[in-house]
Amino acid sequence: MSDSPATPLLDTVATPADLRTLKPAQLRQLADELRAETISAVGTTGGHLGSGLGVVELTTAIHYVFNTPDDRLIWDVGHQCYPHKILTGRRDRIRTLRMGGGLSGFTKRSESEFDPFGAAHSSTSISAALGFAVANKLADRPGKAIAVIGDGAMSAGMAYEAMNNAEQAGNRLVVILNDNDMSIAPPVGGLSAYLSRIVSSREFLGLRDLARRVARRLPRPLHAAARKTDEFARGMAMGGTLFEELGFYYVGPIDGHNLDQLIPVLENVRDTEEGPILVHVVTQKGKGYAPAEAAADKYHGVQKFDVITGAQAKAPPGPPSYTGVFAKALIAEAERDATICAITAAMPSGTGLDKFQQMFPGRTFDVGIAEQHAVTFAAGLAAQGMRPFCAIYSTFLQRAYDQVVHDVAIQNLPVRFAIDRAGLVGADGSTHAGSFDVTYLATLPNFVVMAAADEAELVHMVHTCAVHDTGPIAVRYPRGNGTGVALPATPERLEIGKGRVVRQGKKVAILSLGTRLEEALKAADQLDAMGLSTTVVDLRFAKPLDEALIRKTLTSHEVAVTIEEGAIGGLGAHVLTYASDSGLIDAGLKLRTMRLPDVFQDQDKPEKQYDDAGLNAPNIVETVLKALRHNSSGVVEGARA
Amino acid sequence: MSDSPATPLLDTVATPADLRTLKPAQLRQLADELRAETISAVGTTGGHLGSGLGVVELTTAIHYVFNTPDDRLIWDVGHQCYPHKILTGRRDRIRTLRMGGGLSGFTKRSESEFDPFGAAHSSTSISAALGFAVANKLADRPGKAIAVIGDGAMSAGMAYEAMNNAEQAGNRLVVILNDNDMSIAPPVGGLSAYLSRIVSSREFLGLRDLARRVARRLPRPLHAAARKTDEFARGMAMGGTLFEELGFYYVGPIDGHNLDQLIPVLENVRDTEEGPILVHVVTQKGKGYAPAEAAADKYHGVQKFDVITGAQAKAPPGPPSYTGVFAKALIAEAERDATICAITAAMPSGTGLDKFQQMFPGRTFDVGIAEQHAVTFAAGLAAQGMRPFCAIYSTFLQRAYDQVVHDVAIQNLPVRFAIDRAGLVGADGSTHAGSFDVTYLATLPNFVVMAAADEAELVHMVHTCAVHDTGPIAVRYPRGNGTGVALPATPERLEIGKGRVVRQGKKVAILSLGTRLEEALKAADQLDAMGLSTTVVDLRFAKPLDEALIRKTLTSHEVAVTIEEGAIGGLGAHVLTYASDSGLIDAGLKLRTMRLPDVFQDQDKPEKQYDDAGLNAPNIVETVLKALRHNSSGVVEGARA
Repeated sequence: MSDSPATPLLDTVATPADLRTLKPAQLRQLADELRAETISAVGTTGGHLGSGLGVVELTTAIHYVFNTPDDRLIWDVGHQCYPHKILTGRRDRIRTLRMGGGLSGFTKRSESEFDPFGAAHSSTSISAALGFAVANKLADRPGKAIAVIGDGAMSAGMAYEAMNNAEQAGNRLVVILNDNDMSIAPPVGGLSAYLSRIVSSREFLGLRDLARRVARRLPRPLHAAARKTDEFARGMAMGGTLFEELGFYYVGPIDGHNLDQLIPVLENVRDTEEGPILVHVVTQKGKGYAPAEAAADKYHGVQKFDVITGAQAKAPPGPPSYTGVFAKALIAEAERDATICAITAAMPSGTGLDKFQQMFPGRTFDVGIAEQHAVTFAAGLAAQGMRPFCAIYSTFLQRAYDQVVHDVAIQNLPVRFAIDRAGLVGADGSTHAGSFDVTYLATLPNFVVMAAADEAELVHMVHTCAVHDTGPIAVRYPRGNGTGVALPATPERLEIGKGRVVRQGKKVAILSLGTRLEEALKAADQLDAMGLSTTVVDLRFAKPLDEALIRKTLTSHEVAVTIEEGAIGGLGAHVLTYASDSGLIDAGLKLRTMRLPDVFQDQDKPEKQYDDAGLNAPNIVETVLKALRHNSSGVVEGARA
Repeated sequence: MSDSPATPLLDTVATPADLRTLKPAQLRQLADELRAETISAVGTTGGHLGSGLGVVELTTAIHYVFNTPDDRLIWDVGHQCYPHKILTGRRDRIRTLRMGGGLSGFTKRSESEFDPFGAAHSSTSISAALGFAVANKLADRPGKAIAVIGDGAMSAGMAYEAMNNAEQAGNRLVVILNDNDMSIAPPVGGLSAYLSRIVSSREFLGLRDLARRVARRLPRPLHAAARKTDEFARGMAMGGTLFEELGFYYVGPIDGHNLDQLIPVLENVRDTEEGPILVHVVTQKGKGYAPAEAAADKYHGVQKFDVITGAQAKAPPGPPSYTGVFAKALIAEAERDATICAITAAMPSGTGLDKFQQMFPGRTFDVGIAEQHAVTFAAGLAAQGMRPFCAIYSTFLQRAYDQVVHDVAIQNLPVRFAIDRAGLVGADGSTHAGSFDVTYLATLPNFVVMAAADEAELVHMVHTCAVHDTGPIAVRYPRGNGTGVALPATPERLEIGKGRVVRQGKKVAILSLGTRLEEALKAADQLDAMGLSTTVVDLRFAKPLDEALIRKTLTSHEVAVTIEEGAIGGLGAHVLTYASDSGLIDAGLKLRTMRLPDVFQDQDKPEKQYDDAGLNAPNIVETVLKALRHNSSGVVEGARA
């Protein structure tokens, strides 16, 4: 902690109860120290910085005004919660953020009573807060629920669904719209334009003006009914009609870095009997740290960095990332084919589509955090002759599952899914893991489901997607860098449903899907060294299966193991089902499936996560040896041939 | 067709091209005949009636004004499309609606070029229409896309996501908001209240007034830019601010049964260069058929009926429906436990929660068509001490998959899922089949997944859900009536992960999940009669599996078959995976999995659908016999013991 800033006032605040003993005049200093500590901590660990810096004053003000944890504070997405963690008893572990065994980079119920609802995906906070508020109302318990949600998160349908249902919560629900005109990328769409119009058309409320309005409009009313009028709502409202139409009282816009504004407004919001209330707070992402303020992404997610200069630690040079290879491959396809277009849900940089957009701005569609719309929009494009690629992370594609089933699969429309972040994802932990896509996609009729074993395979698979016009097709690939294999000059069209034998052996077979191939090859070397001649197959397709190759492999080896970066129900289940359907299992089959375990794994380095999951080379070797030794007829067989 | 009404004008209209040769003055008669034909057809077939009757004039006007099928008309949900089908070349088959081999009850791409995008789930139309519009724009092709969406469907987040992205379509996109103040049940929420306020605060536009406004505001402009002003928007707008804020030009409200209003407005909408435009049309569900207008649900979905009296054919008396048993069981639980509450997404009657609501109005939450919000709201309720039941059809729960994973499963919150319409569903066809829930839920850590084998089991399982406080739990059950088994006076708490042996045999074992149990027992009788003594196990749980019972069963029988009402990746896959993990398969195992086939099955009677799927008793017998005969070592074994 030698680098830690001096934080004399913050040092006296272990919990929000301590914070609430301070005088209002002390809060500016506290916020400054909280900001310095946040910068110092993230400098050490890396992580999300800009979002947290934008809400330092808001975090301070909320905990000062509301009675947390009995009042339930729910941070949407949760990546802006580092200052909140520092104020709520977790400062001693703040320099373990996102590390194995350390604090989560998001809010997490198991971590603290001050995290009543975990998040990491966007736009869940209003629904959850409404649940807390209504439960309290039913039990006639005191306690409010406060959702803090960014303007980018407001583009998601579920935020709207929640707002549409919020009226029943009355004054138990407070929604704070944290408007920084930026989610991860600049936000898109009509709502965003609307918020900009509000902010640009109005001055922030002056302090005197604010105090007068607040005093006039929001005292605990004697005649609540009489006050529930348009007049009340419009007194404070400065253009928030959209929210009012959905049943909210709108307050704002308010400068989210000015504690002299935030505190009295929040106090009045706390004390009023009107509700639900939406407080429109304007903040600046990266506020108070010059390198972040100057950066285009406002230091959304950063590596460890030097606090003085802001210089981030560089990743060691290595093979290109899968994301980068995907983007290049798609650009190459789009150069050949004018019908290729690309869709992202607010992740242009994360999916690599920012590069595609530079080349083909008219064929790139960033729909905001709106995966449901993204998929059905792509289905419409496909039905009218385009060749759309939906580039959505595995975990976020879950948001659009019904659209994948109902609009794409049932209609057999050739929408292409580029599924990044498949498998375990490291520091982002369980909420971002791409564990289920093979299971939830390969169960669907009409679908083709591929997984790339390395970056060269990814190039072939992007091309295969591009030219596959007869139905939906998906390719999954992991976070991080490729293996360093040479990229093909000309991509191949892979034959649908055909795997490849990467290494031919005699006794043991490893049937791999995706980037476990590298571990499978390592394991094969080790098994070979033990005298167990090992075949390695890259199946390429989870659906349709290469039944001929599987049959040949299973019947010509003594033991076979499938391995995949996904949960139960995926490749292994499909191979077993084929073996059963075909009667191959009748005569005895030493077949094992290696897959993600039946737990949600916390954040750690990806290699360590796969170690914990039992999906690295030593685990493969162990599984093979154990299977060879196992003999349910009671005859013990040696491990060696 | 002896009952068919006289329809001299309609008889001359085979396609919309014919319609467009008529004079405006003839359209009233045409609409009347179209309405009569719709009533007559649905009287014969049963199906959705009220929704179609509400849009007879709108259907006529759209096809008259727009150049379908080149202009793409997309009906949201699709159940209002019967008049559309009559006008678009399918009149000769209209009396086969929803029957096996007949017309679908929804729009369907494979049926007609006039159905550019199939639907059946709600709220997809704007996203799809935007895809068509943008594809045309990119290709510089003419052609508009027209989405017709009900006010109930507007409560879903994906409609909002689409509106938020609509501006880019310009005048190629027309959204017609069909406001009948009613989806299936009366709609809920802030948006609905907002629409009511618009309609109640304004007279419909008078014809002269309308003509003047239209003429002034919507001619093809010489200076498009100059007209894209607030002034333009507000000229026609009568309170549509919410839509304007999202980037639409708002027109309305318009009487959707008055062709003299509809035609000129739609012509001007067609011809303007402004856009996208939202036309707010007010209609009456069930319009023009007295029995429907008088009914509370406006004849949303009906049995065959007598056209003169409106009397619907009564279903033959039989055992209670699973839906009804669920509702009663949940009411009983709620009487014992004040923390039990129930959530529906706009299906109070379909889920049986209308009865629950009569008893416990304060503990019933109809959130509108908003499954995502429903699930996360339930998670919030659970986190604050309530015991929420989310009653959502299997197919609609797909809409909330990410919320199930991210907000419920990862946080291990005890949300109860009552999953009605599991398995094949009959006349509603592939879009409504509940085929995937076991696969997509049982792959999730922390989840308990049950299926009821009969209505008595359902009662036990509802109780088991109620008292299971340690994590998420789901019970699935089918559409239709129970088996007639006696209901338990006192429900049992089932031991989590324990199956039951229903019938003990020696040679063959059938491992059943859900209501295939009846067929399994029939098959067992037949197998017994062949000398193949048969055990039948009701596994009750897809997750966690009863591994001890499975091991015992597999090792003590010559052949075993799993059967379930779901697609690949579910029970069968989990049993095979266990058999593989445990090494049971090493020594040879005659194990087969029976499941839904890898196709989306069209509508038919459920028994016929299960026949097609190969999941009835004769199929079980055949699977067992085939497995017994199969001997991959080459030794042919007799079918008899």
